[in-house]
Amino acid sequence: RRQFVNDPDAIVEEALEGLEAAYPRLIRWNRDPSFVARATPAPAGQVAVLSGGGSGHEPLHVGMVGAGMLDAAVPGAVFASPTAGQILAATQAVSGGAGVVHVVKNYTGDVLNFEIAAEVAADDGIEVRQVLVDDDLATTSATGDGPGRRGTAATVVVEKIVGAAAAAGADLARVAALGQRVAATSRSMAVALAAGAHPGDPRPSFDLPRDEVEFGVGIHGERGVGRRAFASADELADLLVRPLVADLAIGRGDRVIAITNGLGSTTNLELAVIHRRVATILAAAGITIERALVGPYVTSLDMAGCSVTLTRADDELVALWDAPVRTIALSW
Amino acid sequence: RRQFVNDPDAIVEEALEGLEAAYPRLIRWNRDPSFVARATPAPAGQVAVLSGGGSGHEPLHVGMVGAGMLDAAVPGAVFASPTAGQILAATQAVSGGAGVVHVVKNYTGDVLNFEIAAEVAADDGIEVRQVLVDDDLATTSATGDGPGRRGTAATVVVEKIVGAAAAAGADLARVAALGQRVAATSRSMAVALAAGAHPGDPRPSFDLPRDEVEFGVGIHGERGVGRRAFASADELADLLVRPLVADLAIGRGDRVIAITNGLGSTTNLELAVIHRRVATILAAAGITIERALVGPYVTSLDMAGCSVTLTRADDELVALWDAPVRTIALSW
Repeated sequence: RRQFVNDPDAIVEEALEGLEAAYPRLIRWNRDPSFVARATPAPAGQVAVLSGGGSGHEPLHVGMVGAGMLDAAVPGAVFASPTAGQILAATQAVSGGAGVVHVVKNYTGDVLNFEIAAEVAADDGIEVRQVLVDDDLATTSATGDGPGRRGTAATVVVEKIVGAAAAAGADLARVAALGQRVAATSRSMAVALAAGAHPGDPRPSFDLPRDEVEFGVGIHGERGVGRRAFASADELADLLVRPLVADLAIGRGDRVIAITNGLGSTTNLELAVIHRRVATILAAAGITIERALVGPYVTSLDMAGCSVTLTRADDELVALWDAPVRTIALSW
Repeated sequence: RRQFVNDPDAIVEEALEGLEAAYPRLIRWNRDPSFVARATPAPAGQVAVLSGGGSGHEPLHVGMVGAGMLDAAVPGAVFASPTAGQILAATQAVSGGAGVVHVVKNYTGDVLNFEIAAEVAADDGIEVRQVLVDDDLATTSATGDGPGRRGTAATVVVEKIVGAAAAAGADLARVAALGQRVAATSRSMAVALAAGAHPGDPRPSFDLPRDEVEFGVGIHGERGVGRRAFASADELADLLVRPLVADLAIGRGDRVIAITNGLGSTTNLELAVIHRRVATILAAAGITIERALVGPYVTSLDMAGCSVTLTRADDELVALWDAPVRTIALSW
């Protein structure tokens, strides 16, 4: 498909310039090295929270920068890790002396570059803890080998909880431990009806036969882990949710935060129809959805598809979820 | 393209059920007649604000229901007006004795049904004022004949300002007058790269040659008013913005609220690139963007395209824009 683009190689920088022009009261773009920070920095003495990763997943991560969530986000090129230099500069910029938490989606390049930046920052006297997000159930390894599960839409939950804890004055160890707990109890599953296309390239990143859908797709245009017959929204929602419930081992009396997430070009009507079924399945299992989001939060360019994320919740996590937040994408 | 759908004829009801399940603290769905109201009604004695129209434009209108904006929204079928019966029931439900403002996009069916409902409500002793939104510059009639300009994304601005005025305790005449002033000083222009598709129907509502785009499209899958050569994001943005500036007769020293709106499947990256150019053009003309939104707010199913809306702003309108709001789509 065709796109609104000038120079495909400049789309990320142009988009950041446009976002800063639109939301000067929320964000500031540091052009070189490129990162996006809060327009009004957090009060001194708080743990700082930083995330980042490839672009093409908007509103993640830049849309999550603001009071109560991220202090800064480091955008890479489309579907490519930011550099260690960018991450280091952002880490130094947000550091307020109480340490910095890096929220990192589990991809080899991201993990490597965030680790390098953390090591250099440590030499500068900035203590960094990494919270690794690895919620994508489709990439569970049976043998435990390989890079492990990918990080996808649970990143929103981790960033919200971690940001709220930092804003409440928790110390570095506590903020990081909370993030790790959220990541450990979050799982996601995605399905694509059609792949997205890179800026400047009209071709989708993979083709699907008319009668099949791709399950277990990630958020980088990669193929999924298996094809299934195209089916009704309810049937596809069943195939997303039931493995999550099984893997999290949740049942009657358990509580979750749920995200029914659009991967790009799926309409809000469709997402709400999917979420209806998610809610029905969980209610039938005696599981309470404490809080939910329905919409495009972690996208894969204009992929047609959706994912469902469930995070086990308790009173503490719900209170942190409900704490005030003011970003482009989440605000309450 | 394929969609997440069970029964295409039930998609609106199923989506409303899903949204209510996701956001029980914000909205309540009245199933029959169908309308969506605030979960926590506004304090007694306030002017009530009601809107509605065809579905397929999500997050409009249901996503704008909440404190500081709409008291209720009345969804029709996809691209079809709600019935007068639905509108009347919602009007009666939200009426708190201080009158009700109907925010209506200028389409024949919507206007007719809202007028019928207003007349019947008047017989019940409920005073209703209609604010007609007619911002789509593409449908300006040279002769003044016909139904006049269509209502599109300026609806968001009108609903925000009117809702803020009602929440601040303004009386019915004042709230309606403010809404009319916003509508009168708002203009929008849209461009499509590809038409959207109705639920259950994989075919787009119109086809475009590879080297052309459609200017002046509305939000109902209708053809636009003219085709132009496909061009860069900046060139297309120029063609959207310059007519708005000319028609509003704004220039150096003037102030606006701007919305760079996605029509469905356009990525946030692309919208931000468009907004960058909008900001550049306006800055060069000496026009200040006081507040902006960049994202999908008034969609046309999964149309690939965008629109730009400009509303003349002054201190009063900016203050009402900044007033607290808590809905699914807008919250601050």
